[in-house]
Amino acid sequence: MSSEFRDVRLSVIDERIKNVENVIAVSSGKGGVGKSLVASALSLSLARKGYLVGLFDLDLTSPSTHIILDVGESRPVEDRGIVPPKVHGISYMSITYYSGDKPTPLRGQEFSNALIELMAITRWGDLDFLIVDMPPGISDATLDIIRLVKRSKFLIVTTPSRLAFETVKKLIKLLSDLRVEIIGIVENMKIRESDFIKANVERLGVKYLGEIDFDGNLEDALGDVEKFSNTRFFRRVEEIAGELIKRLASGTQ
Amino acid sequence: MSSEFRDVRLSVIDERIKNVENVIAVSSGKGGVGKSLVASALSLSLARKGYLVGLFDLDLTSPSTHIILDVGESRPVEDRGIVPPKVHGISYMSITYYSGDKPTPLRGQEFSNALIELMAITRWGDLDFLIVDMPPGISDATLDIIRLVKRSKFLIVTTPSRLAFETVKKLIKLLSDLRVEIIGIVENMKIRESDFIKANVERLGVKYLGEIDFDGNLEDALGDVEKFSNTRFFRRVEEIAGELIKRLASGTQ
Repeated sequence: MSSEFRDVRLSVIDERIKNVENVIAVSSGKGGVGKSLVASALSLSLARKGYLVGLFDLDLTSPSTHIILDVGESRPVEDRGIVPPKVHGISYMSITYYSGDKPTPLRGQEFSNALIELMAITRWGDLDFLIVDMPPGISDATLDIIRLVKRSKFLIVTTPSRLAFETVKKLIKLLSDLRVEIIGIVENMKIRESDFIKANVERLGVKYLGEIDFDGNLEDALGDVEKFSNTRFFRRVEEIAGELIKRLASGTQ
Repeated sequence: MSSEFRDVRLSVIDERIKNVENVIAVSSGKGGVGKSLVASALSLSLARKGYLVGLFDLDLTSPSTHIILDVGESRPVEDRGIVPPKVHGISYMSITYYSGDKPTPLRGQEFSNALIELMAITRWGDLDFLIVDMPPGISDATLDIIRLVKRSKFLIVTTPSRLAFETVKKLIKLLSDLRVEIIGIVENMKIRESDFIKANVERLGVKYLGEIDFDGNLEDALGDVEKFSNTRFFRRVEEIAGELIKRLASGTQ
């Protein structure tokens, strides 16, 4: 019975993003590598280049883009679904609009449910880019999003650490097995010269998009978009965004 | 029916750890804060102080203690269950003995199953400390371990970042709701003076165990236990281990 029952929300999800040109899933092997910072800076810089951009925070267990961007009192509006508010020029949606500061210890099934619900209710409208801040690693949620949004292309963030790269390797393997497109890898929090990540990534046949130096001023810029846009970190992500657009335009993987 | 069916493995778990004095769950809000490094250094330093120590890597989606400690060719032995090998004086167990380098994209139920299986088969014997390297954040696995190992006491690792602390707050809230003991918080990767974490942790009624400066030499010490034991990071964890023993001995929370 259950396999014949098709959740009506699943077909709604396709409908919700049918006018979205590119779905970019910003992902990582481990948490704490700066994935949400990259997703936030990428969204902002694409918006400033004049693109229509949405940012979808699906890191349900540790959402942070709402803090980075200080989404303040913004709220989604109900209108045949939920319309995301515009935050600093970005259409923005996050579970935190509904969960607030409460812990959300969702079990597998509930988790999947919350995710599907959020994806099914949000009306993105016309977008050039929908940036998805993914849950870290290979979780249920990662698998769900791959299943539900077949068009998503992955941008993977790592740090120079071997420990981070160990899980990135597994993520690349999984995505390849599932035939999911990987746009490239960004190496964040670089503190010294090393080509360990670049060499290893290229050996796996994945594009190395660039490195971002460790930026000790970033912490002070959290929640202050003006300050954030003036960090070295942000300017590097802007350059990487340019690189990304070229790759997408040329259709190369 | 299913609620009446009691998984026989659940009672085995109690049996497996009945001669373990202290179960310390090293946890974090976010990933990437150095949880596995703290768990590894803590295990090593307790063992060097003469205690019987086990290290159980239950961070199933991104295990890393096997890399940090370079467990090499060690393997568990089958004998009425599985007996963990001794690695650098520590009884050591990890999912990687069974999964190798394969990605393990376990779904909620399978995940719970793998966890229960691993806990049910491992014979720890007599231990003063069983250090558990927990999955990051509030996941199914976190909830399972709390449910299955009622005696675990939590040691929480965070970084100075507001982004890390946001999820730590939620973890503390959850653990308090579930009446799980929190031994204290360790602030890792400190790069400058700030009492943000200390002040906030103490406001939540949780013990601040100490800070650890960012150590740029740590990466080079991964997999080399001699080098690792000579890092500033390791020496700070040794001091914190001393603090921890005092707290456990005095029975204060």
